[in-house]
Amino acid sequence: MTAQILDGRATAQVIYDETKAEVDALRETHGVTPGLATVLVGGDPASQSYVRSKHKRCAEVGIRSFGRELPADATQAEVEQVVGELNANPDVHGILVQMPVPDHLDDEAILAAIDVEKDVDGLHPVNVGLLAMKGREPLLAPCTPLGCIEFLDRYGVDIEGQEAVVVGRSNLVGIPVAMLLLHRNATVTLCHSRTRDLAEACRRADILVAAVGRAEMIQGDWIKPGAAVLDVGISRVEDPSRKRGYRIVGDVEFETAKEVAGYITPMPGGTGPMTVAMLMRNTLKAAQRAAGAME
Amino acid sequence: MTAQILDGRATAQVIYDETKAEVDALRETHGVTPGLATVLVGGDPASQSYVRSKHKRCAEVGIRSFGRELPADATQAEVEQVVGELNANPDVHGILVQMPVPDHLDDEAILAAIDVEKDVDGLHPVNVGLLAMKGREPLLAPCTPLGCIEFLDRYGVDIEGQEAVVVGRSNLVGIPVAMLLLHRNATVTLCHSRTRDLAEACRRADILVAAVGRAEMIQGDWIKPGAAVLDVGISRVEDPSRKRGYRIVGDVEFETAKEVAGYITPMPGGTGPMTVAMLMRNTLKAAQRAAGAME
Repeated sequence: MTAQILDGRATAQVIYDETKAEVDALRETHGVTPGLATVLVGGDPASQSYVRSKHKRCAEVGIRSFGRELPADATQAEVEQVVGELNANPDVHGILVQMPVPDHLDDEAILAAIDVEKDVDGLHPVNVGLLAMKGREPLLAPCTPLGCIEFLDRYGVDIEGQEAVVVGRSNLVGIPVAMLLLHRNATVTLCHSRTRDLAEACRRADILVAAVGRAEMIQGDWIKPGAAVLDVGISRVEDPSRKRGYRIVGDVEFETAKEVAGYITPMPGGTGPMTVAMLMRNTLKAAQRAAGAME
Repeated sequence: MTAQILDGRATAQVIYDETKAEVDALRETHGVTPGLATVLVGGDPASQSYVRSKHKRCAEVGIRSFGRELPADATQAEVEQVVGELNANPDVHGILVQMPVPDHLDDEAILAAIDVEKDVDGLHPVNVGLLAMKGREPLLAPCTPLGCIEFLDRYGVDIEGQEAVVVGRSNLVGIPVAMLLLHRNATVTLCHSRTRDLAEACRRADILVAAVGRAEMIQGDWIKPGAAVLDVGISRVEDPSRKRGYRIVGDVEFETAKEVAGYITPMPGGTGPMTVAMLMRNTLKAAQRAAGAME
């Protein structure tokens, strides 16, 4: 048996189309165009490229984008000043500070300075807190975890009552995706570097989320037959057969895993595109709330 | 084999003695007496009794206590007004609103109105958020979960790398104790009413925390030999052999479980007394922080 591929690019495109229709509707009914502001500190080429691709998607779905760039030696006060201005700007509904910021800056204080209603990355402590509470929900949740849930829903994978195993406990992915799965009534296990028998834990998973960044650590024989496997890790491994000398792989060894899993994300083209799609949707949602147009 | 009993009354007493010594030291070095304010809305006898017992413990360890009582028909604004006064009162270092409050009140808004630095119940969304983040810690964490960890530490039960299973996902116990166990590097599984095979999940646990409130649901054959079992649930079951006609039991069937477990809390006399002890320690900690006397 070969797993069904969870196609991030195609699914993201569907979400872009849906988002564009909602953006158009919001403009017509409320006269509001959603706006996303990115804050980039320093000139890291990878970060610049991420920011550019987000702006490109904004244009595609009709979201206005605002790009703020600060030099690599910007002070904490300068960054927080920019965040404060964006908080106060009614045309900006979502604020994304591209991480990582240079080491001399306090990234936690920057995240906490963002207005919770504009926190489209879902990383403000209050949004994290609401996500970690039964019966509550955050104004906005982190994009990569949302993309994982969206994949399961779009491909008809049940969550309720299933055993979900999350490998990795980062603030960006592991912990929030565990909380989202818990809200959807999965039985959730959080594993990490100190987990004694990781293979055994993975073998229990009906839904397996891998988010540690260790190349191809999870192999086919760690996977329960029929499981849904969501690979969030991203690593480069040397590959002399490629012109650029490397290839991008996930935490899951795709070739062996796809023979066992029921559903699996490719890398690249899996959870990555979904993350950007969820950012667009979070920005739309923030604008709808600000306009009093939430369903 | 019979399990070692995790004695809540004796352990709490040790913590009271330690706390009293630290309270005395804070008064001598900084001229500050820790203060705990309780807010009781309505005259529920059980709540009155809980509040009284907390004040009694305060007196025992040298913490000044402030009792505010409001009628059962107090408005949201009146309750938040009282919380605001206590936030502003420099003699008050901890504020505890006795839950549950009457149905017409918004308990979440009340909890969010408490100054995060005085949030000795650890239920403010910001403290919940910090608890749910890797590399962060809340100013104050919830008392019952803290009591569970304290038990394990005082009795020398390893946490790191162990399989911990938490049954129940309440905001008061289940989710925060899972987060505390995760911070201590346990592999953590959160189970609940939708978990397919709860017995099987419990059997994996080196550390089992039961917090659902279903009388004696977890029996001896659900427990891994040698496990540490922390019972937080509390129920009344009819018992004609008792003069009052009932007895208090936990979520764990103590008689069968103690033959299998390595460590087990009794009910009553287990996690309950530890909760009050942690409240005293949280109040001390809040006063130490306010006085600039944190270690």
